[in-house]
Amino acid sequence: MTSPLSGQLPDGRADRPLGVAMIGYAFMGKAHSAAWRAVGSHFDVPATTRRVIVGRDAERTAEAATRYGWEESATDWREAIHRDDVDIVDICTPGYLHAEIAIEALKAGKHVLVEKPLANTIAESTDMVTAALAARERGVQSMVGFNYRRVPALTHARDLIADGRLGSIRQLRVAYLQDWLVDAASPMTWRLRKESAGSGALGDIASHALDQVQFLTGEDIREVSGRLRTFVTERAGPDGPEPVTVDDAAWITAELSGGAVATVEVSRLATGVKNGLRIEVFGERGALRFDLENLNELWFMEATGPATEQGFRRILVTEPKHPYLEAWWPQGHIIGWEHTFTHQLRDFLTSIGTGEAPRPSFEDGLQIQRVLAAVEESAAAKSAVVQVPSATHDQH
Amino acid sequence: MTSPLSGQLPDGRADRPLGVAMIGYAFMGKAHSAAWRAVGSHFDVPATTRRVIVGRDAERTAEAATRYGWEESATDWREAIHRDDVDIVDICTPGYLHAEIAIEALKAGKHVLVEKPLANTIAESTDMVTAALAARERGVQSMVGFNYRRVPALTHARDLIADGRLGSIRQLRVAYLQDWLVDAASPMTWRLRKESAGSGALGDIASHALDQVQFLTGEDIREVSGRLRTFVTERAGPDGPEPVTVDDAAWITAELSGGAVATVEVSRLATGVKNGLRIEVFGERGALRFDLENLNELWFMEATGPATEQGFRRILVTEPKHPYLEAWWPQGHIIGWEHTFTHQLRDFLTSIGTGEAPRPSFEDGLQIQRVLAAVEESAAAKSAVVQVPSATHDQH
Amino acid sequence: MTSPLSGQLPDGRADRPLGVAMIGYAFMGKAHSAAWRAVGSHFDVPATTRRVIVGRDAERTAEAATRYGWEESATDWREAIHRDDVDIVDICTPGYLHAEIAIEALKAGKHVLVEKPLANTIAESTDMVTAALAARERGVQSMVGFNYRRVPALTHARDLIADGRLGSIRQLRVAYLQDWLVDAASPMTWRLRKESAGSGALGDIASHALDQVQFLTGEDIREVSGRLRTFVTERAGPDGPEPVTVDDAAWITAELSGGAVATVEVSRLATGVKNGLRIEVFGERGALRFDLENLNELWFMEATGPATEQGFRRILVTEPKHPYLEAWWPQGHIIGWEHTFTHQLRDFLTSIGTGEAPRPSFEDGLQIQRVLAAVEESAAAKSAVVQVPSATHDQH
Amino acid sequence: MTSPLSGQLPDGRADRPLGVAMIGYAFMGKAHSAAWRAVGSHFDVPATTRRVIVGRDAERTAEAATRYGWEESATDWREAIHRDDVDIVDICTPGYLHAEIAIEALKAGKHVLVEKPLANTIAESTDMVTAALAARERGVQSMVGFNYRRVPALTHARDLIADGRLGSIRQLRVAYLQDWLVDAASPMTWRLRKESAGSGALGDIASHALDQVQFLTGEDIREVSGRLRTFVTERAGPDGPEPVTVDDAAWITAELSGGAVATVEVSRLATGVKNGLRIEVFGERGALRFDLENLNELWFMEATGPATEQGFRRILVTEPKHPYLEAWWPQGHIIGWEHTFTHQLRDFLTSIGTGEAPRPSFEDGLQIQRVLAAVEESAAAKSAVVQVPSATHDQH
Repeated sequence: MTSPLSGQLPDGRADRPLGVAMIGYAFMGKAHSAAWRAVGSHFDVPATTRRVIVGRDAERTAEAATRYGWEESATDWREAIHRDDVDIVDICTPGYLHAEIAIEALKAGKHVLVEKPLANTIAESTDMVTAALAARERGVQSMVGFNYRRVPALTHARDLIADGRLGSIRQLRVAYLQDWLVDAASPMTWRLRKESAGSGALGDIASHALDQVQFLTGEDIREVSGRLRTFVTERAGPDGPEPVTVDDAAWITAELSGGAVATVEVSRLATGVKNGLRIEVFGERGALRFDLENLNELWFMEATGPATEQGFRRILVTEPKHPYLEAWWPQGHIIGWEHTFTHQLRDFLTSIGTGEAPRPSFEDGLQIQRVLAAVEESAAAKSAVVQVPSATHDQH
Repeated sequence: MTSPLSGQLPDGRADRPLGVAMIGYAFMGKAHSAAWRAVGSHFDVPATTRRVIVGRDAERTAEAATRYGWEESATDWREAIHRDDVDIVDICTPGYLHAEIAIEALKAGKHVLVEKPLANTIAESTDMVTAALAARERGVQSMVGFNYRRVPALTHARDLIADGRLGSIRQLRVAYLQDWLVDAASPMTWRLRKESAGSGALGDIASHALDQVQFLTGEDIREVSGRLRTFVTERAGPDGPEPVTVDDAAWITAELSGGAVATVEVSRLATGVKNGLRIEVFGERGALRFDLENLNELWFMEATGPATEQGFRRILVTEPKHPYLEAWWPQGHIIGWEHTFTHQLRDFLTSIGTGEAPRPSFEDGLQIQRVLAAVEESAAAKSAVVQVPSATHDQH
Repeated sequence: MTSPLSGQLPDGRADRPLGVAMIGYAFMGKAHSAAWRAVGSHFDVPATTRRVIVGRDAERTAEAATRYGWEESATDWREAIHRDDVDIVDICTPGYLHAEIAIEALKAGKHVLVEKPLANTIAESTDMVTAALAARERGVQSMVGFNYRRVPALTHARDLIADGRLGSIRQLRVAYLQDWLVDAASPMTWRLRKESAGSGALGDIASHALDQVQFLTGEDIREVSGRLRTFVTERAGPDGPEPVTVDDAAWITAELSGGAVATVEVSRLATGVKNGLRIEVFGERGALRFDLENLNELWFMEATGPATEQGFRRILVTEPKHPYLEAWWPQGHIIGWEHTFTHQLRDFLTSIGTGEAPRPSFEDGLQIQRVLAAVEESAAAKSAVVQVPSATHDQH
Repeated sequence: MTSPLSGQLPDGRADRPLGVAMIGYAFMGKAHSAAWRAVGSHFDVPATTRRVIVGRDAERTAEAATRYGWEESATDWREAIHRDDVDIVDICTPGYLHAEIAIEALKAGKHVLVEKPLANTIAESTDMVTAALAARERGVQSMVGFNYRRVPALTHARDLIADGRLGSIRQLRVAYLQDWLVDAASPMTWRLRKESAGSGALGDIASHALDQVQFLTGEDIREVSGRLRTFVTERAGPDGPEPVTVDDAAWITAELSGGAVATVEVSRLATGVKNGLRIEVFGERGALRFDLENLNELWFMEATGPATEQGFRRILVTEPKHPYLEAWWPQGHIIGWEHTFTHQLRDFLTSIGTGEAPRPSFEDGLQIQRVLAAVEESAAAKSAVVQVPSATHDQH
């Protein structure tokens, strides 16, 4: 479908589908690919074409290209992002590669979508923000992939809060619980080494939880108390036992700019919980509840009307008027986790079409990095409260 | 506590606590005893005293008297109900004894509470209604123990429906599922013999379900299609294998006087379900859901307001303004199944105090008997629809 | 991706992707399109290409082609199915067109997938079975789209039952509740006219429920008692009020070949329930529960081990070893309703590749038609039990 | 019922029912009264008689005596506890009165049950422990009322953990959420003044949560990080606005002696949550979940067997073999919150009968006070971790 928005390129390039290069073909590459395939069939966005997928292993990358529907595969990301027929660079690599690729792509005038967390360090993140700001001046967009902002139920939750339906927010209670590391015999991976992953559950899943705290409330996290724990301190690596150098679990108590208190608890050893991003928000006039394992549901409670009729109601977020839902199926026909990425692309492509900078921006990503760094600092100081350096943006 | 209501006896007897005689000391006797002990501490009702408990086995009845807090025990129910210091007779025997005891007690001028179902046959039930009507003329009250009308959540549900909150009712979906007979090795009891129990799941638990259908809607069941099944046709009796002569499960489709269609499904072999009286009511403007295993909860859905905010809400029925709840604990502190009996006594005693006839009346009990008989008739006729002879009362 | 299975065409055609023609572009066309786009990226199946989408309205069909990713659009289904580059015909039209298209396609040697129900009449269905049997002889496959057999949780349920984990099945309790017709002001559509839709909730959603009863148990429905109801008998049509000539709701009690009793209750006026296909299965040794609104969950209860530890457990059906799940995301990342169609194509294409006839076959579809007809016959005869003419196949 | 245990008095007093004096008649007095009335009808315990209820307001205390079934009422607690016919003193007053009454009662040779928390200060608690130890030497028993240890589901949970079914415990996630102070217009009470209540949500409900952490794991809390917050800092008192001098909410991260990490979050402003004591326990081999609003349920997950069959199962804790349940109703018939007190008395009276010291002891109560004090200390020190002075007992 040729959308009315297609080809609204900022720099006068021809009216043709936007070419996409994706760097990385593992878990995130597979998920992003599905989204790139689907977005144009369900949303009115600028047309795109999947030009090239890039990975280090030529054979496996070629296989991924065939399987996931990319025109070509390549092993040199630099070459790929400089191609004239590439307009968008989608970065799905491990975090330590984000900065270099993103900055070069932005400099080359390519719109950039980068998976979360923004980078492994504050320094890298800061450089990325600098590059993003400069590019934005030239109409080149950038976004960080906190895809859970695009869970329709959570977007709906944010809207209800923004509309004042909960009144002033007092407490948030957030957990992101998984259990894929419960078994002490589960082997080492790059995700368990500090040099490649930056941190463990903290950067991987607390980053999502913290982003939600800020996204839902529209407030910044101002101070944190943190605790980290590695329950299984050694795991089997390719050359024998290897120390686990990242956290298995993290606990955070945070104070927000508007006065609310939020707790965040994340773990990869929460036996029996598979992908439990659970959120509770308590306001003066209402409350909300959510669990990613049932991502089509939002529980909403209004503390109005007779007490005898109050209660949390299960809203099945599949109505045409729910965020993003008009694009999908009749009411009651649930969507899957993968479409958080489809919706992310919908918003990213819409931003490219309109020229309005998308959120979450690299600045938003940097703010999360600052919170994560403050948590680590607090954890190293017996959980004593640490201030988060203030960010300057005003909106989530 | 001497309540302002105490001693409002219809026949001029002295202002003393009402004396109670209870016939039967098994499961229902234990439950009723707990209610008799509790009712005066939580509700403003005429004062009562637990005069005598009656059973066939002198020793076990005496033990029950001590344990459950009755002044005396006895083995002759006739003598007990004729005592001058007995004003109320509470009948907890198997169904085949209901009619004889109730009729004699009513004739003796004693208020009568009889466990459900009213009796095992229409003939007995009809005689009981005759006796009850005559007694009512003399200010002597009678009630049948459909205690689930006194689950606060169900009383609240009835009120919401009566207030038009659901609009016209179109469908009810009711099940009462238990699993205590799943094991084919489970032995014979009086409950599995037609001569003592009348029927199986039908009379025991479908009677509750059918009473709820009528209670909640305020409509009568006009016609039914029924099916019965005995899955385990023989069980170990005291003298070897014995045929099971009652149903294990029953299925009913019913049409109500107001045009709604109700289904009732009951079973004692619903593996894994312990006491699942589950009710769903669908109206033009709203819906309700309930499960006895979580009897402090009512799920309420209003099909009003934006579709994006509709959903079933869980009302925790523990607010002071919920039916019966002011008597109990602060919000959120749940009550147990036993207090359906406490509330039943509260209403029965209040009726005795005010002289207003209590519901469900013996007529209500007879109406349920007629429905049960129609179900059996339909089941014997390949499920073809059978009309329920019309009752004449106008209120539930 | 060139799968090892690709090109195993029965009739010696060249080793190229299988060409697909899809007839219909509305709700089902959209859902099937998404599945055709996705199946090859997630499963090892014969390669396919989306040749042509066919509809009556040229402009809208062309738009659908662009949007849903079909190479061409067309308005003449006959021409389309006779194209040499078309190997598979996917029929998503209203039911009254199924027979003609399917039979012609099968005769033309094209594999056929047809949406459920198989057709609107027994006569048409019987003709389709005849055509399918003849085609099967020539290696041409056919399948009817009871896509809920491909909900991983239900496939898993079937496997557990087939493995004897529930013991002999005694009762099934199935409902398919929707509420899109609650509002009496909701207008007429082809789905509410008998001539186009055949029946209402009965054919549309009871067909799914009945197929599940047979699929899960591996047993045939032998006799039924039925009731039908149209609650809103007139709705606004294009030329004023028009009678609704199909049922809004249906109730079925069925007996299975293995002795189990199943109830099926379906409605389009079940206020507040959006897409509630709910299934409970009770066996001698265990039980299962499922709800389509949470289709990634299966509740399983084993009546073994200490009674103090028994209970329904929520299995999140997202493990790599669950049916179809290896193709998707890490555990806990749920999939959407649309992938029941992706899985359906996976199985259909695998059958085409291997030459083994897929299920549910047209015979399976005919068997459901016979049950539906028996329900209508019973409903017309005051719900008296009607036998279902026996089918001859031996497996579900 | 004269139990075989009755009259086993340590000091040779006559074989008569144990006389009970209860100090306090408000919320806890009402709940304890219900338990005293019920315990002997359901459990084989030493016989008791409700001699006297004591309160400051003579009239209201007399009314409470009548209503709740006490033989006499009185206003002088000292006199009451010294009565010869009083053997047990049950203290239900606000916390600041606990120490004086308990110590005098113990010295007078009376068994003492005191509501939680043990006292408002460590100093008082320490004195109470001293008195309890001395009394214990003389066969006089004492217990603190952490009644939630007697929720059957939690007792069952403790047993499963003690039996190693969860393996080594890694994480606990506990919240106790209520919402009775959400409304800023809700007035002052003694519970919101530091001098009478000691603390707010911390002492009132975090004490329960912390006791559960230790009870369930059998481990001590060794160090804590804490945060306190008063959201509504001023409320309407009898003489105008008055500062709220206790916390509305508290957050605790704790490390246990066995290495587990526990979080406790409590609030009286958790909009929409009425009485949500929610507990999650994650071990190496399994997990448990509980919510006080559904106190008859325990959710248990075993990380054993095929991954495709794992999941949290809902155990309805109503089986005869579940803790305390043999005394109650057939399976599936739930009990209410009040019977946590009935079970508490069952255990207390059994201890009196056998002479074995009951748990939780005053030492257990003191340990909780130490944890609470450490939380307050940490909260005052920017949440920096504070060690809990070690206790010497070895069992929970």
